[in-house]
Amino acid sequence: MVQGRLAKKTKPLFYMEIYHENYEMNATHLQRCFNFSPGPATLPEAVLHRIQADFPVWQGQGASVMEVSHRSTAFMALAAKVEADCRRLLVIPEHYAVLFMPGGARGQFDAVPMNLLPATPNAVANYFAVGVWSQVAIEAARRHAQVHIVASGEDSDYSEIPDPASWSFAEQGGYCFFVDNETIDGVAFQTPPSVPEDMPLVTDMSSSLFSKPIDIERYGVIVACAQKNLGISGITLAIVRQDLLDKARPYTPDVLNYTKMAAQQSMLNTPPTFPWYVTGLVFEWLLAEGGLARIAEHNQAKAAQLYAVLDDLDFYRCPVQPAHRSLMNVVFYCPSPELDAQLVAFAAERGCLNIKGHARKGGLRLSLYNAMPKAGVATMVEVLRTFAQQYG
Amino acid sequence: MVQGRLAKKTKPLFYMEIYHENYEMNATHLQRCFNFSPGPATLPEAVLHRIQADFPVWQGQGASVMEVSHRSTAFMALAAKVEADCRRLLVIPEHYAVLFMPGGARGQFDAVPMNLLPATPNAVANYFAVGVWSQVAIEAARRHAQVHIVASGEDSDYSEIPDPASWSFAEQGGYCFFVDNETIDGVAFQTPPSVPEDMPLVTDMSSSLFSKPIDIERYGVIVACAQKNLGISGITLAIVRQDLLDKARPYTPDVLNYTKMAAQQSMLNTPPTFPWYVTGLVFEWLLAEGGLARIAEHNQAKAAQLYAVLDDLDFYRCPVQPAHRSLMNVVFYCPSPELDAQLVAFAAERGCLNIKGHARKGGLRLSLYNAMPKAGVATMVEVLRTFAQQYG
Repeated sequence: MVQGRLAKKTKPLFYMEIYHENYEMNATHLQRCFNFSPGPATLPEAVLHRIQADFPVWQGQGASVMEVSHRSTAFMALAAKVEADCRRLLVIPEHYAVLFMPGGARGQFDAVPMNLLPATPNAVANYFAVGVWSQVAIEAARRHAQVHIVASGEDSDYSEIPDPASWSFAEQGGYCFFVDNETIDGVAFQTPPSVPEDMPLVTDMSSSLFSKPIDIERYGVIVACAQKNLGISGITLAIVRQDLLDKARPYTPDVLNYTKMAAQQSMLNTPPTFPWYVTGLVFEWLLAEGGLARIAEHNQAKAAQLYAVLDDLDFYRCPVQPAHRSLMNVVFYCPSPELDAQLVAFAAERGCLNIKGHARKGGLRLSLYNAMPKAGVATMVEVLRTFAQQYG
Repeated sequence: MVQGRLAKKTKPLFYMEIYHENYEMNATHLQRCFNFSPGPATLPEAVLHRIQADFPVWQGQGASVMEVSHRSTAFMALAAKVEADCRRLLVIPEHYAVLFMPGGARGQFDAVPMNLLPATPNAVANYFAVGVWSQVAIEAARRHAQVHIVASGEDSDYSEIPDPASWSFAEQGGYCFFVDNETIDGVAFQTPPSVPEDMPLVTDMSSSLFSKPIDIERYGVIVACAQKNLGISGITLAIVRQDLLDKARPYTPDVLNYTKMAAQQSMLNTPPTFPWYVTGLVFEWLLAEGGLARIAEHNQAKAAQLYAVLDDLDFYRCPVQPAHRSLMNVVFYCPSPELDAQLVAFAAERGCLNIKGHARKGGLRLSLYNAMPKAGVATMVEVLRTFAQQYG
């Protein structure tokens, strides 16, 4: 068990004592580790402190934030603040709607074609196939339309973004969809792809939105689940250019309908209020940290350190081409699957958790979202060096 | 502002001191009130204590429950425990799937026809129209099929369940849907309606599931959002008889597809992990309280006390026929809208919050879900008596 080992070898990130009259526990030493999980992922400590401080009574409401009506003045003010902070961080122009929806990115994989494509049998959409999540999105789109593959990275086992010279578009396609950062494969677009003029560019930025500044006006729709860089699971952000509203197919369920959600400020029905609140705290933290340009610098530095040590030591192998590597998810292999498993345990003993690769890829994966502190990366670098020395 | 008033007049339900090194707050007196919100609604104190105790490190995972992977051994064990406790509380037979889904009850209003009706243009479903939520469900069903209205309470302004003698069914209808407890109108079925043999009975029990024992085998599908009697907003329970699976229309989004959700134990994609965890704590609390028969007695007693005082005093008016009154949502009026508003403020000063009626009905509404303590009802009875005396 992870717990026993950790208790001996790691230093707690912060220490917290909880005491209250009605609970039998008096004082507990609670140990936090460096959590490299791909999502649900680690939260900033400042956010955890705020959640703690706001509990069990939030803003003098006589109840916790989980227990207040989404229609209450206090929660409506929270929702307005979250949207304002979101717009400020990403510099979102007025002619884009900012929606908070249920269903995760997978819900959006259906929402995009249902909301954007005409209800005609020959409707076509363009998709890049650059990793596992691209494939899932394509499968979803095929429920609703024809899918034209612009380019596929399958031949390279998704180790690179295909050369733009090889891309082909269905010009009559309703939009072009791409996954900005493939969380499982560790491959990422370094800049948004160029598409035919007037073709809306739609992107799943679940694991990269808020990790860097972007030019919103390049996109028609941007979607992202919250549990990587903007909060906890249960809420999904959709940024939709206003001229793309009012096109939903008649069968579109209300909760996945951009137009209806936009008309009701994402409160068509009771939204996931607690996840929404946590996203607001993450936005406040991002602003306090200096915004996305500053965050992007940190993220560049963190990933560079790790790729450097992996490339430097002959022991490890990174499958992704250097020019297309993700800054968020560092995928790599030890010389054997046995050593991969040993490294997972070795890192856990040193307070670095959840570094196992996705079942579809094997190997290892370090997720370095905004909230992963430099100290976590430094510890992991040390772990990688020591392990290679010991087993190399 | 509510806070200032409360600080003077109400006694805190429990007192909690929070201290930790890295946060500037040393000790805070946090005041909880009786929260009559229709949802998101009050949680049991024991559940709040557990959330507090589990934070910021859950089960030695080195992270809070919000930050651990849904695929981790610890979270998978939690999910299995939640399902087992759910089955135990409701006595759910093996041939029903227990699903935890995103999208709230409104998501289910689309999910039900998408999952149960054949993809033919003349598909028909039977619906009872007994309140506002029935109407929303009917509107959603019309996106997917013909709707046959079995009976409507519209003429009585939804103050009663129409007489069974007046019910008519479309015999070829794929299923019959009813809202068990109309949260806005305060009207409820006292027993499930009898429908033609072999017609699956489908019910939205968002505000009544887990408030009383029910006979699961009467139903084909039961759905309920969590934020009333089983947790916080962001997760939705669907209990589906296995023989009703494998019928989803081809356009059904994955996240609303019962068959796909059942095949993946509700982990088709990252589920709303924190809401799921809270639901688990609520189930543990319900079991510790002695189960649903015991809870139902409490609920009967709580509602009876309030209806008694409302009927007893000439001052108030309950629009719902006594035989069809909800035990969960007590809807009533003062002699004038001005007095309604004054009662809201009068109650708030005495620690009873969120008693305003829904915008569509006006008046007042007391939501008495499982977690509303007897002390809250006693306080409210006193408030109602005093107010009537003072303004009657």
